[in-house]
Amino acid sequence: MSLEKELHPADYADQLERLSAEDSVDFLKDLSSADLAQVLSELEWDVLSDQLELLDDDSIEGVLVIAPLRQAVALVDLLAEERREILLQRLPTRLASNIRSRLQYPQETAGRLMSDRYICLKDFHTVQETLDRLRGRAFQEEYEDVSYLYVTDEKERLVGVVSLRDLLFRRPERKISEIMNPEVRFVQDTDDQEEIGRMFHHYHFLGLPVLNAERQLMGLVRANDAMEVLQEEATEDMQLMVGLSGEERSWTPWLRSVKKRLPWLFINLLTAVAAASVVGLFEGIISKWTALAVFLPIIAGQGGNAGAQTLTIVIRDLALGELSPGDGKKVFFKEFFLGCFHGLCIGIVVGIAGYLWQNNAMIGVVAGVAMWLNLIAASLAGVLIPYGLKWFNIDPALASGIILTTVTDVAGFFFFLGLASVGLYSMGLM
Amino acid sequence: MSLEKELHPADYADQLERLSAEDSVDFLKDLSSADLAQVLSELEWDVLSDQLELLDDDSIEGVLVIAPLRQAVALVDLLAEERREILLQRLPTRLASNIRSRLQYPQETAGRLMSDRYICLKDFHTVQETLDRLRGRAFQEEYEDVSYLYVTDEKERLVGVVSLRDLLFRRPERKISEIMNPEVRFVQDTDDQEEIGRMFHHYHFLGLPVLNAERQLMGLVRANDAMEVLQEEATEDMQLMVGLSGEERSWTPWLRSVKKRLPWLFINLLTAVAAASVVGLFEGIISKWTALAVFLPIIAGQGGNAGAQTLTIVIRDLALGELSPGDGKKVFFKEFFLGCFHGLCIGIVVGIAGYLWQNNAMIGVVAGVAMWLNLIAASLAGVLIPYGLKWFNIDPALASGIILTTVTDVAGFFFFLGLASVGLYSMGLM
Repeated sequence: MSLEKELHPADYADQLERLSAEDSVDFLKDLSSADLAQVLSELEWDVLSDQLELLDDDSIEGVLVIAPLRQAVALVDLLAEERREILLQRLPTRLASNIRSRLQYPQETAGRLMSDRYICLKDFHTVQETLDRLRGRAFQEEYEDVSYLYVTDEKERLVGVVSLRDLLFRRPERKISEIMNPEVRFVQDTDDQEEIGRMFHHYHFLGLPVLNAERQLMGLVRANDAMEVLQEEATEDMQLMVGLSGEERSWTPWLRSVKKRLPWLFINLLTAVAAASVVGLFEGIISKWTALAVFLPIIAGQGGNAGAQTLTIVIRDLALGELSPGDGKKVFFKEFFLGCFHGLCIGIVVGIAGYLWQNNAMIGVVAGVAMWLNLIAASLAGVLIPYGLKWFNIDPALASGIILTTVTDVAGFFFFLGLASVGLYSMGLM
Repeated sequence: MSLEKELHPADYADQLERLSAEDSVDFLKDLSSADLAQVLSELEWDVLSDQLELLDDDSIEGVLVIAPLRQAVALVDLLAEERREILLQRLPTRLASNIRSRLQYPQETAGRLMSDRYICLKDFHTVQETLDRLRGRAFQEEYEDVSYLYVTDEKERLVGVVSLRDLLFRRPERKISEIMNPEVRFVQDTDDQEEIGRMFHHYHFLGLPVLNAERQLMGLVRANDAMEVLQEEATEDMQLMVGLSGEERSWTPWLRSVKKRLPWLFINLLTAVAAASVVGLFEGIISKWTALAVFLPIIAGQGGNAGAQTLTIVIRDLALGELSPGDGKKVFFKEFFLGCFHGLCIGIVVGIAGYLWQNNAMIGVVAGVAMWLNLIAASLAGVLIPYGLKWFNIDPALASGIILTTVTDVAGFFFFLGLASVGLYSMGLM
């Protein structure tokens, strides 16, 4: 396989991710530091981590010097403790200290997400002075996507915002302090990045300044980066629900896929055994009336589907911040009601069909009621599982699909076979 | 309930979505046209559609005149045919004809997604002349988030791009034609919006110009709007997989939720009956050996979970454009291999456990082999269902979870009970 140098870094990275770590590092070695930095920034985390181990110190140093600070911090954070120190000592003092101070922020906070490539203005300059100062600077590639310019005071505290458009359209003799907007929305450097993603999604910001506890301007979160966080969150949620790592892709090498999926399949096996043992408890009645076994996949399957509907809505709305703290109770009661109503509709149909098929009213009633109860259980589980996980500070999506199926299987089998036992007993058949 | 006027339009819309259509229209009537336009732009489609029916022509006309063209087109498109004509005739001729020409584009194309609020430059002007012309214009709110300026020739054809930063940083006497970048990435006005979302996700563009077949500049797609398309796509995929409409939220009124979910639950009931009738086929053996019924939820449940893992990865990678056309075969073979391997691991464990529990080697072998075969079937279904739906031009996520469970239930029951019949027969027990 050969890789063309003319590929966009994102496409180049895509090709590399389909190769083994050893093969792809051979391609990376031939790239310039600037190209290498761009390609590395496009790699998935686990692939990137493998590549860094195989790249030599010189290559990584070259990337750290040239990369945006945000990327450099992420790279250094992936290095083993010892190697990290060695590399930081090789870097220019100022860069090393910048990286060190960013590393203080916990992962997935605004402090890690923010860009350092923004332009600061002083409020006492005029528009013309500001334009001249900007033009006087060397042509700087890194300010490519700036739409807003932030105004700080002598203590680096944020006092206002000016759009680049203002600078262009306003009269040259006006002062920055006159044209700036002093009411600036901002986030704290310690804020969670998903929370920030939700704000951008909700309010459609283009960028938000990041302040520390002293209101000093520390960086800028851009819409692209914030929305990317939400995209990753969506992928992660979908994957976590069914017992995937949150980071797997179609082209992930098979051994890595096995390592990530097989443990969950074994956990699912344990939960399936739990459901099966409920059936085991009632082997006695099934042997008396084997038609009961035919109903089992219907009762359990309907519960699983109805529960998945509720679960999906709750998880997605939690992720997008559509559910505020007080909404939990409302959703609970709405879904409880829906479970009752759907259960009634499906239960009546199943009950009548069961009666007609077996020509036995008791089995019809038992199947209908069990279906009704299981759809209620499914709805409640669909709300309680994600909220419960969240309560324990676990991702609301984690294995939620697996837990839900366990609940609907166990509850469905128990309702149906339990009621059937009572019915058979009361009819003197047991 | 009272709504404060000081709420951000996005929060105001959130509050309204929790009310009935009749109640919320009372609040909308009190808003100015500008506020109304902003709040309407934040509403979900189905809520918006209900509101428009209840709003009078004057209110809607006020919004159409003031709203960005993209929003005006979307609103007009939601109106009933007759009312649309009446309203278009009330609008200023030029606006009406702009809306009409945008309505020609199919929904979900670049022509519908693009914004008309961009600035066009002429290549023969100098930087200073351009700045003076821009300043000479009235201060225009709508150009708030422009980062790039497009350069067109006398026939409105796109010839280059200038960043706002270039205009600021370059010497005033230089010509636009000298500082512009003549190599501009663009999209066609008829391109699918999801395809465009994937491009923005992959290449991190901030904006892309939209050209028609004659290379004339028609509009601008902004990163925010393109990324929002992908967010909606993620929500939609998660919902479609489990039989939801793709548009439901936690606060959707219960009657609407019932209308959207119940039909899918009935479809799921039909598929569950299909799975149950496989069990019904084998009632004879189950009556001879009821322990077989205990294995059914294990075999089917494992298949469902393993299949969901594959399905989720394929659907998500298709949505994000991580799977190029040639990748289908590779993914098929990878998942086939994973199915074989996972099936072997889980099958051996289930087989040994079955043997120990029933103290019967035949039942152990049958359970193990059935599990192995069902995990292979599950993996293949996880790839073939989304690719199959795509082949028929249906959303790869549509009801895919429901179809998958049907396959893994039917296949699992058939493998297990079929093999058990053969085993019992060969052992002379039947």
